[in-house]
Amino acid sequence: MFAVEFIAVGTELLLGQIVNTNASWVGSRLADAGLGHFRQTVVGDNLDRLVAAIWEAAARSDAVILSGGLGPTRDDLTREAMAAAAGVELVRDQEYALALRKYWESRGREMPESNLQQADQPAGSIPLPNPKGTAPGLRLDMGDAVLFAVPGVPAELFPMMEDHVMPILQKLAGGDDAVMVSRLIRTWGESEAKVGEILDDLFESSRNPTVAFLASSGEIKVRLTARAATTEAAAAMIAPVEAEVRARLGARVFGADDDTIEEVIYALLRARGWSVGTAESATGGMIAARLTAVPGCSDTFRGSVVAYQEDIKVDILGVDPATIAEHGVVSESVALEMVEGAARVLDVDVAVSVTGSAGPDPQDKPVGTMVFAVRTPRGAVARTLRLPGDRERVRTYTATAALHHLRLALQEEEES
Amino acid sequence: MFAVEFIAVGTELLLGQIVNTNASWVGSRLADAGLGHFRQTVVGDNLDRLVAAIWEAAARSDAVILSGGLGPTRDDLTREAMAAAAGVELVRDQEYALALRKYWESRGREMPESNLQQADQPAGSIPLPNPKGTAPGLRLDMGDAVLFAVPGVPAELFPMMEDHVMPILQKLAGGDDAVMVSRLIRTWGESEAKVGEILDDLFESSRNPTVAFLASSGEIKVRLTARAATTEAAAAMIAPVEAEVRARLGARVFGADDDTIEEVIYALLRARGWSVGTAESATGGMIAARLTAVPGCSDTFRGSVVAYQEDIKVDILGVDPATIAEHGVVSESVALEMVEGAARVLDVDVAVSVTGSAGPDPQDKPVGTMVFAVRTPRGAVARTLRLPGDRERVRTYTATAALHHLRLALQEEEES
Repeated sequence: MFAVEFIAVGTELLLGQIVNTNASWVGSRLADAGLGHFRQTVVGDNLDRLVAAIWEAAARSDAVILSGGLGPTRDDLTREAMAAAAGVELVRDQEYALALRKYWESRGREMPESNLQQADQPAGSIPLPNPKGTAPGLRLDMGDAVLFAVPGVPAELFPMMEDHVMPILQKLAGGDDAVMVSRLIRTWGESEAKVGEILDDLFESSRNPTVAFLASSGEIKVRLTARAATTEAAAAMIAPVEAEVRARLGARVFGADDDTIEEVIYALLRARGWSVGTAESATGGMIAARLTAVPGCSDTFRGSVVAYQEDIKVDILGVDPATIAEHGVVSESVALEMVEGAARVLDVDVAVSVTGSAGPDPQDKPVGTMVFAVRTPRGAVARTLRLPGDRERVRTYTATAALHHLRLALQEEEES
Repeated sequence: MFAVEFIAVGTELLLGQIVNTNASWVGSRLADAGLGHFRQTVVGDNLDRLVAAIWEAAARSDAVILSGGLGPTRDDLTREAMAAAAGVELVRDQEYALALRKYWESRGREMPESNLQQADQPAGSIPLPNPKGTAPGLRLDMGDAVLFAVPGVPAELFPMMEDHVMPILQKLAGGDDAVMVSRLIRTWGESEAKVGEILDDLFESSRNPTVAFLASSGEIKVRLTARAATTEAAAAMIAPVEAEVRARLGARVFGADDDTIEEVIYALLRARGWSVGTAESATGGMIAARLTAVPGCSDTFRGSVVAYQEDIKVDILGVDPATIAEHGVVSESVALEMVEGAARVLDVDVAVSVTGSAGPDPQDKPVGTMVFAVRTPRGAVARTLRLPGDRERVRTYTATAALHHLRLALQEEEES
């Protein structure tokens, strides 16, 4: 497989002053193109370390892309390092030096002479045009590997990659199976280990498409990635595996690719013509904030009562003080009265309520006891969670769990 | 110089599905601690390539930090790779295996057996506690280098780095002026360029302590960093510069180090014995969610009404329909009636209200028109913002701006 490495050059990256978004962008472009990409490196503005990184990467791969270090200052060392790595001289490109002078003249400013180092190029290299800036990119063949230097500024890197580097790489890589297609299946409600077990034999047997797991924000995502000669062929290889994954995971699957649980909920609500609101205590408005983050939600979301104090649960939501006295404020009985109160006060068809003890100090029940209720015109149901972790984790997990149970309640078939 | 390398493990990083923010965070922490940090690497979930990356990094550096690949699935290979690189066996930590079983039992769920691979550790390694998750970190000495494995999830990586890895690294690094003390002065309400101008001469003249600027989440932070033989000496070098920065920036400074605007607000409210609540339309509960994120807020925060639809503003908050008809729903008049309604309905001394057009579709006023009001027992005031950017940016900025104006209103001297 044709393998490409990416080296980002810049001490500011090592110091954490900027985030290496170029690396993820380049990685995603290489994946889209079906090229192998097995390592990324960051090195600072230091000649010896940069030369070493180029040698190592060139020994491992067919092509190396270097970003950054092409500017006019003393710490811009990429050109020099490429020349040193390849064992060639730096040669001034007189035509480009003249263009640089003219550029400064046209702006009525005197060019610092140091600026001309941008016109110095490793002997044998080919400049790549940079319509967005002054420093051109470079291609330099070095033994069996091809080196590319592109600017570190994303607005200059992206078009130079698209217009010049990617076409050369795809030509060099040649061969079939140049296209890679990924499909992300989003699940909730089961641990990563359990999802892994359910799909274990698929993971084992499958090389194309490959099956991988990602866990983030409480979701487990299953990624299917196929390589083929065309996008259509790759998609056709994914389809039966996706169908199998969905069949095995059932209602745990709530969406695919960029779907969010909030968008899935709105689609279900709109299909039924139902409005929604929330009544929140421990989550303090987090669920409402997430539901109102979705553009265009105003046709469906009506409002929320954050009833943090007990008397607000009673006075605004109509919770019966006797219920609180009997079951405690963190109880399924109170959550159910809150959710019915929200439906009444906010005049909504569907509501979610939360009451809980998020910590660090216990509130009625032990810390981590979180209760939510979900109400649709078909009925209401409450659930109690016992969660580990700190306040923010407990609150965030509860908000996510309540939204997923709302989704499940909406998906249930109508009672006959 | 004691040199530390960072290796982020995960195919999802190479595919560009997530951005390597851990690398910049770790880089900035190592820089703050005065440790050498000359290379960062990303490798995928592949045993051979991961082992090779560990060997190379260990040969170049005194310490190697690996993040990610500690989870319970088959593609979590960091433990196995560390053992292979160091030439030791994997050994099951029976105590931890038992703790894992108990953790799952306590949640009333059956643990998948595959989960136990998290308890397999390279022989001779020392576990590092992970209070935020189930996978512990690891320390493994390998020849002259020390390897650390930390989780890839930022919420688990950050505290494990701070509490366990950084103290070990600083001890191993030793040396004079080994102590570095940083002080972060947090400001809001002025651009980075303007703060830079106000402090320009300090930035120019100062080498120890150094002065640096960081912009994030709408805040401009001024970081003062001093090196000295002891913590006390470094702090003494920072004190006069901090006093000068605070004198120049005045009320723009709202806190230091880990202070949050929410905590600052609660301190001001408690000093006055005042309770707080919100009435939110376009921000949809974001301000309430932020205020309830603070542990122990229940003595001061009472509740919120998210009045997304117009009739909820009228029916629950008591906004006059005539005011809406005359000024529009996104207006200072409506924001003022909302904030007074919140004070009355929620029975609070202090309230914040928001009404606005966050987009993408205009709501009464052009997209980006956001109005908030702040109310204390001394009076109420409203402000109109016209903001660029997408819905989430507009909402987040408005929530932050409203909280800062609440802070300024609370800080105002009592009327005489």
